Formats: sequence, C-alpha cells, structure tokens
Amino acid sequence: MHQLDVDLADRSYPIFIGQDLIAEGELWSSYIRGNQVMIVSNETVAPLYLKQVEAKLSDKQVSTVILPDGEKYKDLDTLNLIFTQLLEQRQNRTTTLIALGGGVVGDMTGFAAACYQRGVDFIQIPTTLLSQVDSSVGGKTGVNHVLGKNMIGAFYQPQCVVIDTSSLNTLPDKELSAGLAEVIKYGLILDLNFLQWLEQNMPALMERDPQLLAEAIRRCCAIKAQVVAEDEKEMGKRALLNLGHTFGHAIEAHVGYGGWLHGEAVAAGTLLAAQLSQRLGWIKQADVDRTRSILVAAGLPVEPPVGMSSTDFLQLMAVDKKVLDGQLRLILLRALGDAVVTSDFPAAELKATLDKATAG
Amino acid sequence: MHQLDVDLADRSYPIFIGQDLIAEGELWSSYIRGNQVMIVSNETVAPLYLKQVEAKLSDKQVSTVILPDGEKYKDLDTLNLIFTQLLEQRQNRTTTLIALGGGVVGDMTGFAAACYQRGVDFIQIPTTLLSQVDSSVGGKTGVNHVLGKNMIGAFYQPQCVVIDTSSLNTLPDKELSAGLAEVIKYGLILDLNFLQWLEQNMPALMERDPQLLAEAIRRCCAIKAQVVAEDEKEMGKRALLNLGHTFGHAIEAHVGYGGWLHGEAVAAGTLLAAQLSQRLGWIKQADVDRTRSILVAAGLPVEPPVGMSSTDFLQLMAVDKKVLDGQLRLILLRALGDAVVTSDFPAAELKATLDKATAG
Repeated sequence: MHQLDVDLADRSYPIFIGQDLIAEGELWSSYIRGNQVMIVSNETVAPLYLKQVEAKLSDKQVSTVILPDGEKYKDLDTLNLIFTQLLEQRQNRTTTLIALGGGVVGDMTGFAAACYQRGVDFIQIPTTLLSQVDSSVGGKTGVNHVLGKNMIGAFYQPQCVVIDTSSLNTLPDKELSAGLAEVIKYGLILDLNFLQWLEQNMPALMERDPQLLAEAIRRCCAIKAQVVAEDEKEMGKRALLNLGHTFGHAIEAHVGYGGWLHGEAVAAGTLLAAQLSQRLGWIKQADVDRTRSILVAAGLPVEPPVGMSSTDFLQLMAVDKKVLDGQLRLILLRALGDAVVTSDFPAAELKATLDKATAG
Repeated sequence: MHQLDVDLADRSYPIFIGQDLIAEGELWSSYIRGNQVMIVSNETVAPLYLKQVEAKLSDKQVSTVILPDGEKYKDLDTLNLIFTQLLEQRQNRTTTLIALGGGVVGDMTGFAAACYQRGVDFIQIPTTLLSQVDSSVGGKTGVNHVLGKNMIGAFYQPQCVVIDTSSLNTLPDKELSAGLAEVIKYGLILDLNFLQWLEQNMPALMERDPQLLAEAIRRCCAIKAQVVAEDEKEMGKRALLNLGHTFGHAIEAHVGYGGWLHGEAVAAGTLLAAQLSQRLGWIKQADVDRTRSILVAAGLPVEPPVGMSSTDFLQLMAVDKKVLDGQLRLILLRALGDAVVTSDFPAAELKATLDKATAG
C-alpha cells in the first residue's frame, strides 16, 4: 500500500493506493468523525462494491443513495436527490458522505458535501481509472449546466481518497482507455520520463498488469498532489491539468453528454492541442506523431467526431471556463513534458488546426 | 460614513455604513476586479435602486437578473436562473455578482457566486434592515430545500458590504419590525448595554430616526463581525446568533415560506427561548417580560401562529441544522445579554414551554 499526502495546510489529506483497500476498513473508516454515513453510488457500481463498503461500517448509521449512471445525470436535479435523502434520513452536520464510483459520482458527492448544511465531510472511493488518477484528487467538485460542463461547483477537499486498484478488474475496456487518456496527459504536461515509461509499458497497462497500473496511478497522483498543493484554486499552474480539455469539452457538448466518454474526448482534444502547438512551431511533427501513437496504443480516439466542424468547436469553446475576458486560453505544449497556459496564439492558427482536423 | 472590517485573514472585507452610499460608486466599485458585473435583484427592489447601481458601473459590462420576490423562491430552481443568465451572458471567472436586495437576494447571490465556476467575487448591497444587520455580513449563503430551510449553501465571504441606510426609507413597516427582531437579538445574546439602549430608543427607531438606525446597524454589524471573525464556520460561538431561530424556522416551515417574515418568526421564537430559559431557572420572569416588551415595542409577534401545536414544533425542530447526533441544541439565555448553545435541558421542559405557549 502506498500513501501520498496532499499538502493543503488544515485541509491536507492522504491518498491510499493499493489492492483490496475497500476491505481494509480500519484504514479509511477512522476518517469518519460522526456516527452517520451516506454512501453515494450509482446503478453500475453499487452491485459490485456497495456491500463491501457497508460491511466496514457496521458501527455507523449508514444510508445509501444510488444515482442513475452517466454524465447526463450530473446536474442540479440529481444533486437534489442526494440532499433529499440526507434530509429524509435526518443526517446532521457531523455526517460523512462516501463517494463510491467514478468521476460523476465523485464530483456530485463532493459538491453535495460542500453544500449540505454549508459543508460536511466526505471520502472518495474512486472505482474507475479516470477518477483514481484525476477527479478524485484535488477537490474539484460540481455539476454541469445545460449551457456548460462543470460550471456549477466548489473547491472542496475530501478527508481521504481510497484507491482500491482491485476495482479496475471490473472496469470495461473503454473506460480503462478513457482513464489512460488522463494518465498520458500527466506525462505530456509535466513529466517526460513518465511519458517514456508509459510508451514502454502501454501494452502491459492495456493488459491490466496490476503492478504497473498501481505504479501509473501512484505517479499520476503524486504529480496531481504536487500541482494542487501549489495552486489549489487554479489561479495558474493547475490549469495545465486541463490539457486537451477545452477541445474535449466542446466535443462532449457537441455529441451530447454520454456520447463520448470524457477521457475519449480529452484524447482527441489532446491531439488537437499538440497539432496547434506544432503549427505554432513549438513542437515538431515527430512530437505530434508520438502523441498520436501513445493515444492510439491506449485504444483512444484521435480524430474529432464525424460531422463536427471547426465552427462547432469555436462556438462551444467560447463558453469554456478558461475564456477570460473574452480571450480563449489553451493549454499547449512547448515540448513533450512541458505545457503552458496561453492565449498567445493567432486565432487563424487555431482555426487552421481545427479545419484540418475536421476536414475528414 | 462608518467602516467596519470583518477580520478573516485573506478573506477579510469592509462593511461600509452610511447615507446614500449606493450613489458613492467610487467607494465600492473599486472592489470589482474584472470588467464584467451581474446585478441580482428582485421585482420589488429593482425598480427602486437598480438604475442607481447601474449608473455607477458605466465602464463595466453589466448584466442583470431580476428574481421573483419572496422566500418561497429561495431554491435550487431559482438559483439556476442566475447560472443560466451568467452563462448566456458569457460571464467569466473574473466577474463580480452584486446582490441588491434583502436577505433572500443576498443569500442566493452569495451562493451563486460561491458555485459559479467554483467561485467568483460578489458584493452585498443589502436594502432591508434585516439583511443590513445580519444576513449580508458573515458569508452564510444558501437556498432552502423543501425539507428544511437553508439546508443547501456555503460559507462564502463577499468583497465588501455596502449598507446604504437611505434604502430604509422605502422599507414597509412590517419589514422594519422584522429587522428589529434581529437587532434585539444582538442585545439579548451578547450586549446588555445595547439592549438597554434599544429599550430607550425603540420609539425613535420605529419612527426611522436616521441617526439612531445607523447607530443600531453599526453596533449590530460590529458584534456580528467580531463573532464571525472568531468562528467563521459556526463550530461554536457563532451559533449564538441563532437565538430564536430553531423555533422560528419551525414556525416558518409550519405556516409555509412567506407566511410569516423571517424576523417575525424569530421574534416569536426568541420569546420561546426566553420562556424556556426561565422555566429552567436561568432567568427571571421579569427578564421574560422585558424580552416580550421590547419585541412588542418593535411591532413584532410574540405568540406562535394560531393552530400550531407543540407537536408541530417538536417535529419541525427535529430537522434543524443544530440537531447534532439526534440531540436538539438550542440557544438559551443564562441572563439578558448572555446566551449559550446548549442541549442541557430536559425534553419535558421544552415540551411544557411549547404546550403553554401554544395553549392559545
């Protein structure tokens, strides 16, 4: 078992990474300070792991709320189901919410914890690779609005994060790949050595080698913990973690939530970011090819959706959170392993990149 | 013009109190850091003050959203109207929301600011006495749930609070009284001298003497700023500010939101708290009579709603946020000017107090 710590003064917390950690209740149940617990899960994950979690909480008053599965339910109405359940069960300010599931469950549970009675504790038990390496760490919580993804939320840190790598055994292939998109992202933005390691080990990761997956998760979480400790509220460096995301959010909005997995959209978006970086002369065509290769090796899409035009992209990107004072900011690559947040690119180059990628 | 400061480290902010401060745009517009502003007001207040505020923001990109007036609209659906407007106007993370109105507008605008893109700036311009002395200061924001008042929210501090005492000229008598309920509360819980001052000056306050109202507001805000600085997240002392509120919330829930003004319900609740304190032998009957007298002098109700039973009270109070681990905690009076948060009272005495008060 590995332990990493996210260093945020009085909001610091540990990330536990290892096999069968859900079953090690004494590890994480000590982070529950009251005698009430609300487990939030979804229809897909609950049948697999809910009983295991409940078994470790026999001394608590445990309630559960099972949400429908999918990004399209990540909204205020579904959030309100959690509040209703909390109130019907008379859960008080000392309760602890437990997020048992992927990124959607984690984001919504964290936001519900941030808002219920103006803030109660919560624990993340992420069960997908994507949520284990990214969304469960760092305290970004929230829901979507019909006009934009993740537009309503809070920075709110959990008491601890329990990454049970055994849960990856039940993960569909498509979701494993989606998680690998975020794993590759860490290499591209900040860690060339890790990128090289991923290039060497991608076949084994795709075969779900447990040691290598645990090592990948550990390295991603270590990078994320470091970035979040430096810039919790995303005033600067943390934005680097959004490589490919502005393009990706546009793809998700275009195809409708749930049409593409988040990680898939990020993968296609990451290649667009690399292509624009190359067009600006910052990286070489060989770097773009290398980016494409590793994404393909991870089973990820590298082309925008059929029928999506550059105009579609530009309109949808205009409502991205990273549009500051009307100026679109993107995460681009100065080199592999070295990303920057910038609005320092000609609009014509962005359009040319999108035109070429969407030419079909 | 008075200035008070709420001391919360990097979230400290000033409260400005004085005549015609809305018109002194240079005083508060310097707290707007971006070039986008969203003014949130309601149907009642907007016709009175919106143009004045807009006139001071001619160099900004200003949008407005006008909410329906009333506590019954303080919910997630109405909150979503603010998010929709923010997104339709493409407001970004540097925007500043301005709450122009009473407590409902302030609570919702503050919560919208807390959540929009995980947090943007906001400014409070409270236009009712109640919001000027209480809800605009201290960062409690939120909305109601059908199962409980203020159950969904955040602690989120404004950039500044602009208390323009001239706005009280347009306040209906009923709302002036409702605000005085919270004013009296400060005296009862923490400041016997202030309570005596209020007893002497209540007739003039009811006549809206501008100097005396400004002085009352200043003293209330000074007490609140001090309490909030000591206990921002209500782990202890801040709960004292809820004198009468647990009873009051039960009254509001019983009659339906909007049936009684919040301040009216707090007034009747405050007398119940005093009566229970007397029954416990903590204060004298003369203290209860004095409490009743000043509430009556302020034009406030001191009896529960006709037809509300002690059972109604007890059931509704059981979902109050101050119920910790099933134990009801109340704010009671050890003496006039000295309140405590306690669960140290026999349930039978609470019931007897409620039985007597509701006997009609």
